[in-house]
Amino acid sequence: MDVIEYTPEPEQYAWTFGGVAPTHRIKPGSVLRLWTEDAFCGRLRDITDMPSRALNMPYVNPQTGPFYVDGAEPGDTLALHFVDLTPARDWGASTTIPFFGGLTGTDRTATLQDPLSERTWIYQVNSERQTVEFAAQASDLRLELPMAPMLGTVGVAPAAGEVRSSLVPDTFGGNMDTPEMHAGATCYLGVNVDGALFSVGDGHYRQGEGEACGTAVEGAMHVTMLVELIKGGAPAWPRIETDEHLVVIGSSRPLEDAWRASQVDMIRWFGELYGLDKLDGYQLLTQISEAPLANVVDANYSAATKVAKALLPRAEVYRGTHGRLREAASTIA
Amino acid sequence: MDVIEYTPEPEQYAWTFGGVAPTHRIKPGSVLRLWTEDAFCGRLRDITDMPSRALNMPYVNPQTGPFYVDGAEPGDTLALHFVDLTPARDWGASTTIPFFGGLTGTDRTATLQDPLSERTWIYQVNSERQTVEFAAQASDLRLELPMAPMLGTVGVAPAAGEVRSSLVPDTFGGNMDTPEMHAGATCYLGVNVDGALFSVGDGHYRQGEGEACGTAVEGAMHVTMLVELIKGGAPAWPRIETDEHLVVIGSSRPLEDAWRASQVDMIRWFGELYGLDKLDGYQLLTQISEAPLANVVDANYSAATKVAKALLPRAEVYRGTHGRLREAASTIA
Amino acid sequence: MDVIEYTPEPEQYAWTFGGVAPTHRIKPGSVLRLWTEDAFCGRLRDITDMPSRALNMPYVNPQTGPFYVDGAEPGDTLALHFVDLTPARDWGASTTIPFFGGLTGTDRTATLQDPLSERTWIYQVNSERQTVEFAAQASDLRLELPMAPMLGTVGVAPAAGEVRSSLVPDTFGGNMDTPEMHAGATCYLGVNVDGALFSVGDGHYRQGEGEACGTAVEGAMHVTMLVELIKGGAPAWPRIETDEHLVVIGSSRPLEDAWRASQVDMIRWFGELYGLDKLDGYQLLTQISEAPLANVVDANYSAATKVAKALLPRAEVYRGTHGRLREAASTIA
Amino acid sequence: MDVIEYTPEPEQYAWTFGGVAPTHRIKPGSVLRLWTEDAFCGRLRDITDMPSRALNMPYVNPQTGPFYVDGAEPGDTLALHFVDLTPARDWGASTTIPFFGGLTGTDRTATLQDPLSERTWIYQVNSERQTVEFAAQASDLRLELPMAPMLGTVGVAPAAGEVRSSLVPDTFGGNMDTPEMHAGATCYLGVNVDGALFSVGDGHYRQGEGEACGTAVEGAMHVTMLVELIKGGAPAWPRIETDEHLVVIGSSRPLEDAWRASQVDMIRWFGELYGLDKLDGYQLLTQISEAPLANVVDANYSAATKVAKALLPRAEVYRGTHGRLREAASTIA
Repeated sequence: MDVIEYTPEPEQYAWTFGGVAPTHRIKPGSVLRLWTEDAFCGRLRDITDMPSRALNMPYVNPQTGPFYVDGAEPGDTLALHFVDLTPARDWGASTTIPFFGGLTGTDRTATLQDPLSERTWIYQVNSERQTVEFAAQASDLRLELPMAPMLGTVGVAPAAGEVRSSLVPDTFGGNMDTPEMHAGATCYLGVNVDGALFSVGDGHYRQGEGEACGTAVEGAMHVTMLVELIKGGAPAWPRIETDEHLVVIGSSRPLEDAWRASQVDMIRWFGELYGLDKLDGYQLLTQISEAPLANVVDANYSAATKVAKALLPRAEVYRGTHGRLREAASTIA
Repeated sequence: MDVIEYTPEPEQYAWTFGGVAPTHRIKPGSVLRLWTEDAFCGRLRDITDMPSRALNMPYVNPQTGPFYVDGAEPGDTLALHFVDLTPARDWGASTTIPFFGGLTGTDRTATLQDPLSERTWIYQVNSERQTVEFAAQASDLRLELPMAPMLGTVGVAPAAGEVRSSLVPDTFGGNMDTPEMHAGATCYLGVNVDGALFSVGDGHYRQGEGEACGTAVEGAMHVTMLVELIKGGAPAWPRIETDEHLVVIGSSRPLEDAWRASQVDMIRWFGELYGLDKLDGYQLLTQISEAPLANVVDANYSAATKVAKALLPRAEVYRGTHGRLREAASTIA
Repeated sequence: MDVIEYTPEPEQYAWTFGGVAPTHRIKPGSVLRLWTEDAFCGRLRDITDMPSRALNMPYVNPQTGPFYVDGAEPGDTLALHFVDLTPARDWGASTTIPFFGGLTGTDRTATLQDPLSERTWIYQVNSERQTVEFAAQASDLRLELPMAPMLGTVGVAPAAGEVRSSLVPDTFGGNMDTPEMHAGATCYLGVNVDGALFSVGDGHYRQGEGEACGTAVEGAMHVTMLVELIKGGAPAWPRIETDEHLVVIGSSRPLEDAWRASQVDMIRWFGELYGLDKLDGYQLLTQISEAPLANVVDANYSAATKVAKALLPRAEVYRGTHGRLREAASTIA
Repeated sequence: MDVIEYTPEPEQYAWTFGGVAPTHRIKPGSVLRLWTEDAFCGRLRDITDMPSRALNMPYVNPQTGPFYVDGAEPGDTLALHFVDLTPARDWGASTTIPFFGGLTGTDRTATLQDPLSERTWIYQVNSERQTVEFAAQASDLRLELPMAPMLGTVGVAPAAGEVRSSLVPDTFGGNMDTPEMHAGATCYLGVNVDGALFSVGDGHYRQGEGEACGTAVEGAMHVTMLVELIKGGAPAWPRIETDEHLVVIGSSRPLEDAWRASQVDMIRWFGELYGLDKLDGYQLLTQISEAPLANVVDANYSAATKVAKALLPRAEVYRGTHGRLREAASTIA
């Protein structure tokens, strides 16, 4: 297996999906050992660091990549398996950004009220206990919360010549901010351009579903991942497979449309795996779907449709790709 | 403890929240042993029963009740604890109703396409294995799915003299269709009128999050429940407490507004329980919220904000009501 | 022609559609000379009157009625023709109500920001010049604006036993807040209950499309209207006919669904009038529809689909009802 | 005045805003005499031409440009004045594209229903009478409709390095599809990149508000326009000025957010022009706003907030730019 180790310099960060020359050309089957900077570019380090001063908009959410995958062509399916996500710092940060977030007016949900105050929280990481510590600021509450590392942003170059901000999720993936993107998961993305040109970033040490205030426990991350290429079979929306679940992530507005897109693609997936017609698939999904929200804050909202494999017949998903990647992962972890 | 046993006759069904005279007057602390008819009034019994012919619109989703709770006044909090939910039939039914459901145009999301075909599924209940069986119709797939009984509809009379269809969820509860409403859960509802006038119905033997096609595995239910009254403290939106979780259900359109309402009320709840200010509460919720959808099909959509108690400090929730009800339940189950 | 003159006493106001006994029983063909109180119950009379103190929630938006129309049965069409709308006071009022309005967070679009400040504006009516005067408060700007009297709220009792707040628009009409409801207009409403039980209120001396802050230039109104009954033909959504236009008002959330509902019903109307199939109707509407918003502030938003008769072939709309009512109006104005 | 005449060859069409090298470098004050191809690339010429076969997705909605404007820098305001829009063909075309449009499920508003049938309509242009002719296909109705030429797509390169499809409207303008973009109008756009890099296209011989089926009477267009540059003052959203109106176009989803964005920016504009504070601006706008929809079909929906100048005090809008451009236009028309 080819092994690529890469820690980008700040000038190498990618701020968009598409529109960026690849930093590496890799073969399917490669192992990547990457470092990703946090969404704040590491600029929020203390509770006195306020986003309006510390951040250099729109240069937020830097991505590591893009990677050109040999042989990837439009219509193919890129499989990205996350072997390990390990926090690269002993602290993470979260904050309220004026007119950004799910429970505030924004530039789109435009209201006339004053913005919420800015406040920054720093979470200490306890690696031994695998926790991060929440510390309230207006009162004394401190809570140890389990670490749950994930990547907020995983995507490929968009179709039709578009270049999209790393803040936006859509059919190409991007800033979906779903807790389903954890170690052990395989993400399937439809390839839109030669080489796929994927990149990853936006490590979260922990995040709730919906990411209400717009920023998780953001932190630099060591990412170990495997890359596979499946010819053909490009899904309409990003799909995720774990040992226990099948997941589709839809991204749109209003939120019901994000959910609808993910539901319809899961029904399509049922058709591919089990030959269910759309009405039977609709019925089955109605009774077994989990529907955890991903983000209700980004330029598109993201919703997950998630199904436990234990409820379904065994099936050969993408020709057994996830199982093979899990095995390969066990040899390198 | 007073024990009320009640199986309504069809002419005693309630079709609305509000606007109906109480069938019973009960004391706080009462035990209710009820029977609830399914949302189809038991009219879909075979895969050849089609909703367009078998249902008598708008007479669907009949409720058992309403119950007048002695001493309940506007501003109080009604606590309904579900001790046991047991299927009252050995089959459940689901169907596609023309222009109703999450993945079809409706009278609101009005489109010009032809409706989806009607199709009815009958699920056989296996009480021993505690399963229901899905049987595809266009192919041979059969799947045994775990039973997971819940009530789709729980509510009180609305405020401001309104009378609302039992198909609609809102601040008064109603047709929230959330799988969080299972045995072992305590539902807290704000009282709007003297006596509260609550009713329950719409048993589901199983339902996925979102209830995509609009109908779960619908079935008549034996419901054992306890009723408590807490003076004052009426929550803005229905809240649910289980041994493991705190939950708020918001209901509105678009779906992000249902989610927003539930999130803001959970932050309010954090304030009540822990004295967190709204920014600290927003931050904490961002990192620990679960956000499983309830329904994306009814006149209002419903979203749950759900938090694991294990992540939070111990707290006296509604003066320990849930714990006391759990204990009382153990004496009668 | 029967002529009914009626100025309700405050204890006679109706606060809901449905759930209220009729104040009068009238015959089709009757003339009504009514007085309607403003949405604030006349309590905002000075710029120092603040809604949080002066209003007695939820007792706002009082309606005059309901009227039982002899012979009206479910499925029929009620035609309400507004002959004259004349301000009944020499001032109107508007205000910002905390957490109510289109450009602020609300109980549904729930955000954590502080509310906007309350501010009340009083508009002096100049009957001679037919204007109302806007006076800015934080600066010196004063503007004379043309008077444009309309009724914000016109509706019948809802279907399925529901009782709805006078603040809510839906298929039964209600608080649509459309400037299309002016003198000279005929409003067609589907009848849901025996007698139709319509009421009217919420006079606006002037209102922009969308009613952004949630309150127009609210004022008591002298309303002269004619009532007709058309057997059968109940439209799905309120329709309005003027000498120049056909209009349908849809009410839902999100706003696109209000628009969709009104568009689909206009296509249906084209089918009734001209025999256009739905695709030809869709095409024609695409090129000739006007789409002025009505309200983006109420519990449901309202959107108008409006078509100039001049662009269409002559047609017998509701058997010429509007024309006959215009003639009748000319004899009584 | 510099005069640029330009008819692009098909290989010179731009399919995106951003990401394309300029075809011309022009000076502020230049006159452009352009030709724009229709959104279908001229491929729908007969009612038997069906989009699924005739169109080469995603190569639709070709733009003429982009033009690099000397001296334009981020933060500046580009003023584009449309002197004349004259149909370049004697026919226009419209069609139903499967799963595209406002009254059908789409890839976002994902439903399981079958698509609407494809149908193509050809409109004959009568230059003398200045009309286009609608011809129903399932029946005999033919209607002569007034010509009302406009440009559906006008925009500059987006900010933050994004490249967006010519099908998408957003803060940079783009595919807003508003009938307000007619001859005599001046469009103000905020400049995001050096040179502004604007382009124009998507001529409509006529379009209703909302553009329900997704395609107007699409036609190639002769465009005569003037280009001015205003240093600084970049608006948040595209603004339009005519002799009679001020207009802001917001683009987002759900539709209420498009409307909110346009309303808030109009209140900001009132502040710039008249020194109104935001509450007084909110109040005034509530009573005088027109709110005609633009499109409810594109990747973002577009809504116009429109105010009659006659209702407002005289003001120096963008230092009198529109008036000067009108004068200049009169010398070249």
